[in-house]
Amino acid sequence: MITDSSLEKFLDELASRAPTPGGGSAAALMGAMAAALVSMVCNVTLGKKGYEAVEAELTAVRDESETVRRRLTAMVDEDVAAFDSLMAAYKLPKATDDDKARRGAAIEGALRRATETPLDCARTAAQVIKLARRASERGYTGVVSDGGVGVLAAYTALRSAALNVYINAPSLKDRTFADETVAEIGTLIEFGAAESEAVYGLVRGRLG
Amino acid sequence: MITDSSLEKFLDELASRAPTPGGGSAAALMGAMAAALVSMVCNVTLGKKGYEAVEAELTAVRDESETVRRRLTAMVDEDVAAFDSLMAAYKLPKATDDDKARRGAAIEGALRRATETPLDCARTAAQVIKLARRASERGYTGVVSDGGVGVLAAYTALRSAALNVYINAPSLKDRTFADETVAEIGTLIEFGAAESEAVYGLVRGRLG
Repeated sequence: MITDSSLEKFLDELASRAPTPGGGSAAALMGAMAAALVSMVCNVTLGKKGYEAVEAELTAVRDESETVRRRLTAMVDEDVAAFDSLMAAYKLPKATDDDKARRGAAIEGALRRATETPLDCARTAAQVIKLARRASERGYTGVVSDGGVGVLAAYTALRSAALNVYINAPSLKDRTFADETVAEIGTLIEFGAAESEAVYGLVRGRLG
Repeated sequence: MITDSSLEKFLDELASRAPTPGGGSAAALMGAMAAALVSMVCNVTLGKKGYEAVEAELTAVRDESETVRRRLTAMVDEDVAAFDSLMAAYKLPKATDDDKARRGAAIEGALRRATETPLDCARTAAQVIKLARRASERGYTGVVSDGGVGVLAAYTALRSAALNVYINAPSLKDRTFADETVAEIGTLIEFGAAESEAVYGLVRGRLG
């Protein structure tokens, strides 16, 4: 598992000529960092004097951000697996008509997975943006900038995952699924762009 | 060193109630990921048929991105050290006038370091954006999306580092340095916003 390797080693592998880990794993890791920063804002605030009124709300935000953090962390490896199965499908034999049919079906299945994985990452990153707003509005002022970094990282995770959808969706035979996915990504990006700027502004305002 | 710990452990520490690692380290890591992705685009392209004409240019980009990657990776730990020395300065005794003078000087020095560290991160992230353009214009089409993720990550690293400048600059006694730094950050963000969108557009165009 990539997530067991050191930051140093992960960065070396990202930089190498090997196709994985690549942008999809980086997107998932940025999303996981974003969720971790939301959790941090909550964890630092919980138990602080003067923040008693937001304890219940920030406990709920923290529990949710920890759940999405685990999902996004798992996606670092899932993205590699999705890419590998796509490469394996392209390498299947194509000598006979039977071969070609089998290969075509395998490619379509792998492309679907390689589209659904970043779609899932984009959806989850959008959830982190919502959590970042709740944490940044209510969290301890001394760590509110961490909420700001969180919301920026979450939006970048979303847009980065979108790029991987744009690569794979055009090759899908199932045009309905492809079109629906690209449309959903468009909606997520629109939400993420507006909401992340709003939260960033809120954070800058609270920094004074 | 944080960069020796696993991704899993780094994320746990980011999420914890401990003040470090926080947004500053996350910013540096996003910058390092961005540089790694630029290197990847170059490394995958170098030696590919049909890309002979860009070999010299992409070798130069790769060498530079590897240098900035090392600097940004080091900043993950430097940000923690800068924060720790600021906390230590605030905890110095302040009973006598002598104490107060010593404490004041220590705080000013630590604040300067806690402003220069993210400024350095922002400057280096801006360099990565420039490298991402060169790689994304010339790199192998099959990995151009990784250049897109790289440019988004670099710009987010820049804006995230900026937040840490905004936190610390107002408390500095040296107003000239503080004002110059905030002005430079403004220029870097302006460049980063326009250039990262231009490169993202270029990448989407090359994806077809």
